[in-house]
Amino acid sequence: MKRISIDMDGVLANVYSQFITMHAAEFGKILTAEEITGKSEQQAFPNALKYVKSNGFFRTAPVMEGSQEVVRKLNEYYKIFIVSAAMEFPNSLVEKQLWLNEHFPFINWQQMVFCGSKEIIKADIMIDDHFKNLNFFSGETILYTQPHNELADTLHHKRVETWRQIEQMLLS
Amino acid sequence: MKRISIDMDGVLANVYSQFITMHAAEFGKILTAEEITGKSEQQAFPNALKYVKSNGFFRTAPVMEGSQEVVRKLNEYYKIFIVSAAMEFPNSLVEKQLWLNEHFPFINWQQMVFCGSKEIIKADIMIDDHFKNLNFFSGETILYTQPHNELADTLHHKRVETWRQIEQMLLS
Repeated sequence: MKRISIDMDGVLANVYSQFITMHAAEFGKILTAEEITGKSEQQAFPNALKYVKSNGFFRTAPVMEGSQEVVRKLNEYYKIFIVSAAMEFPNSLVEKQLWLNEHFPFINWQQMVFCGSKEIIKADIMIDDHFKNLNFFSGETILYTQPHNELADTLHHKRVETWRQIEQMLLS
Repeated sequence: MKRISIDMDGVLANVYSQFITMHAAEFGKILTAEEITGKSEQQAFPNALKYVKSNGFFRTAPVMEGSQEVVRKLNEYYKIFIVSAAMEFPNSLVEKQLWLNEHFPFINWQQMVFCGSKEIIKADIMIDDHFKNLNFFSGETILYTQPHNELADTLHHKRVETWRQIEQMLLS
């Protein structure tokens, strides 16, 4: 059974929704897609770091559309690991685990990995929104489109915009 | 630079010391080496699971003798990752990170991995006290002796009793 490493933020968890909401609450302006596309999160939201560190940021993040249904199906045919960089923000450890338990109850604790660097991850396929993770991975790489990577050259990775595309790619 | 995956419980953190202390507090008897050797933790300490789940079990564990000095040296010549099965006990996530920050301050957050199964770990060398982790690892394996594995056949792993032996093995 092939192993898939699936990222959380920007792949399963809609962190941009959180950023936009919190930025609007602070500055009274809802940023448009044009205003955030092609920028890093820190460039698009000056106080991104403050938001990420605030209680509840990860716990209350909306689920990415279609991800629950597709990951549930993938879980039958692949060994799924949810691999999240969580070490930088200690508060996020428990929030992320509670979030996974709520929204992906079919993922058990043996399938969760919280790390700093993902260079230690051994899998056949990696789904991630960050080049820093995909570029150093030796298996098949799937870049999940998010505003920060939308204008970048996709390099040798396969780019997807939705979970439906992942379903077609890995389950058809 | 070669990567080393180093386990926490039973390798860096002296969990047997915790078990013995908590068992003595509950039953009024300090178990001897003979009484616990060759038994699993659950066999040796009937309430092991209760102790592991109690607040502070991981946070207050003593450091294994010699481990700080040797890991500090290894950290200069290898890429060190501290890889701990922490997902089964959600409370342990924060306790383990705080423990590492206190006792191994030269290990940064990028070098920490909390997982369920270690089959997802890619490294060149794995130091662990459990066969369930070492047996499925494709690189060099070092079995750290603990009472539960002391009587078992070492299989193809290299067995060490102390951190000094690891130092001699990997740094001489």
